[in-house]
Amino acid sequence: MTAPFPTPKTDESQRLLSPEELEAALRDIGARRYHNLHPFHRLLHDGKLNKDQVRAWALNRYYYQAMIPVKDAAVLARMTDASLRRVWRQRIVDHDGDAPGDGGIERWLKLAEGVGFRRDYVESTQGILSATRFSVDAYVHFVKERSLLEAIASSLTEMFSPTIISERVAGMLKNYDFITKDTLAYFDKRLTQAPRDADFAIAYVKQHATTPELQRQAMDALTFKCNVLWTQLDALYFSYVAPGMTPPDAWIPGTGLVAEVAQAVGTGTIRSGDVPRLPRGVRLRHDEVRGQHVLLAPERTFDLDANAVAVLSLVDGQRSVRDIAGKLAETFAADRDVIEVDVLAMLNDLATKRVLER
Amino acid sequence: MTAPFPTPKTDESQRLLSPEELEAALRDIGARRYHNLHPFHRLLHDGKLNKDQVRAWALNRYYYQAMIPVKDAAVLARMTDASLRRVWRQRIVDHDGDAPGDGGIERWLKLAEGVGFRRDYVESTQGILSATRFSVDAYVHFVKERSLLEAIASSLTEMFSPTIISERVAGMLKNYDFITKDTLAYFDKRLTQAPRDADFAIAYVKQHATTPELQRQAMDALTFKCNVLWTQLDALYFSYVAPGMTPPDAWIPGTGLVAEVAQAVGTGTIRSGDVPRLPRGVRLRHDEVRGQHVLLAPERTFDLDANAVAVLSLVDGQRSVRDIAGKLAETFAADRDVIEVDVLAMLNDLATKRVLER
Repeated sequence: MTAPFPTPKTDESQRLLSPEELEAALRDIGARRYHNLHPFHRLLHDGKLNKDQVRAWALNRYYYQAMIPVKDAAVLARMTDASLRRVWRQRIVDHDGDAPGDGGIERWLKLAEGVGFRRDYVESTQGILSATRFSVDAYVHFVKERSLLEAIASSLTEMFSPTIISERVAGMLKNYDFITKDTLAYFDKRLTQAPRDADFAIAYVKQHATTPELQRQAMDALTFKCNVLWTQLDALYFSYVAPGMTPPDAWIPGTGLVAEVAQAVGTGTIRSGDVPRLPRGVRLRHDEVRGQHVLLAPERTFDLDANAVAVLSLVDGQRSVRDIAGKLAETFAADRDVIEVDVLAMLNDLATKRVLER
Repeated sequence: MTAPFPTPKTDESQRLLSPEELEAALRDIGARRYHNLHPFHRLLHDGKLNKDQVRAWALNRYYYQAMIPVKDAAVLARMTDASLRRVWRQRIVDHDGDAPGDGGIERWLKLAEGVGFRRDYVESTQGILSATRFSVDAYVHFVKERSLLEAIASSLTEMFSPTIISERVAGMLKNYDFITKDTLAYFDKRLTQAPRDADFAIAYVKQHATTPELQRQAMDALTFKCNVLWTQLDALYFSYVAPGMTPPDAWIPGTGLVAEVAQAVGTGTIRSGDVPRLPRGVRLRHDEVRGQHVLLAPERTFDLDANAVAVLSLVDGQRSVRDIAGKLAETFAADRDVIEVDVLAMLNDLATKRVLER
């Protein structure tokens, strides 16, 4: 992706914008830079990720959720006006809740548990990517070190979140059989909380960004925050989609899961560079009577659709998943990376059923 | 790369190590986690990157270099002992020099200029990846927020730098015709400075990490610093090698260069997703008399080696660079990503000679 977003013209930055123009300029930053545009989110929402890739997202995003009240407490500590603090403190209440088992962080933990994680593993944050930690920490440091205007402006990504949340909840419920409405309860609350918070923040910024320089600072703060969200998805894509180079100590599929889930995944977690093969006793056969391909396993038979046949006929114990995706990309004149995601999902599904191994 | 580094055993962390065991444990972290092991460095040192990928490295790494004295000043500000400060301040002198035009930052700017950048563009840091900024800033914040022992221990990656520097300088001089000994002058100085600094730091850590908990903190600090270096290379790889998804506002080849270099590159900068083609009037021909393939351009002829012929015979104005690399990877049963780097280097070289375009 080569710079799909043109940068704002510098001459524009010299002129004092009206409050409405400033809001339009801020919304324009979101339209060009908000992470709903990131390829990882497109894969997530379209059902193109396998369960482990969704897990990686849930696990890493937990750190962001857990640090949001820390960030908001740092903003609160910048506010010398009780009327401001009375409004802003609600954000901390929303995330921390009024009692154990309540609040946004708790709901995100439920999401992570819903995709199979052990709660203690998620809370330890030991498996998150360093890039996640550095990005989120950059946000916390930003609100401590910059002006209150910039701290508040950096929260304005919430103006754009209702759209992505609706898209995400609908897409994930439709596309993943392991996602339930309960698992996504976090987002229900955010649909009302985020607009309320965003309304306050945009009003504050419009009122206080009264010079071209302050308006530029507000826009830069929002751009910075978009980068905080974007770099987290870059790192997830790099580590768990393509090229799939997971950094040392980051989460590896199969770890941190509740026992029964970990066992079901077993040794079946297949990644881009792995060479998949049929286990001893499993064969791809054409059933002449029924006129379709099946996978024959001891005491079990699996019907295969055309896509599965195309993939499995390339599983020869020599080719890696990447090679197989490359072959298919050529045959079907499609993008290799997109195909690889589908192939990985399919192979991992078969591995879970113990009719494929690496 | 799936976790090539086993994590240290937890029971080991309970026992007080002797100073020699502690040093061995710290060196072991480097042996498993230092960024000489990162695939991006292997490509860099083996001459597998094209000029623009080397530029991306030089540009981003500038931010790290520029922030090192800021980091060291923050460490200095933690030291209440003049004898410690007298030693540590030398690091700031080394990087900032005694006069304009002197010091490590200046030598890194010369390196960046040596690969074609405008000095003001590099100094602005406007083209660096957000992941670079967040990683480097994480280092600065770490030494401000953690104990002095942890701050000093985090600098211990310098124990491992002489090896990587020797390897890098030899590899880059041998493999890149655009790299000269002058360009790499930064590293000459570091060959003597880094061991001196590392000797002091390891002695301090061995003396002051006197409980299992403090020893664990020192090891974690060094691991953290390895992550700071590693995530920077992850981001470079993601943005400029594969999948080549450059984030918004990050440097794009052809920008920030001195005029004549930018002109020489012209429109010739070809990236993974681009579809290369021969410009009007340029043809691939087999010279029957000389028994070899040539590229015929108006008033010029280029002899082609077997690799160039293999690549150019796949340039049809339809296939992207990625497609071409995929085809070749299949033909030669090699890794597509590795081949793609070679193909990009070759195509960009031809583009610079104006016998290829996109």
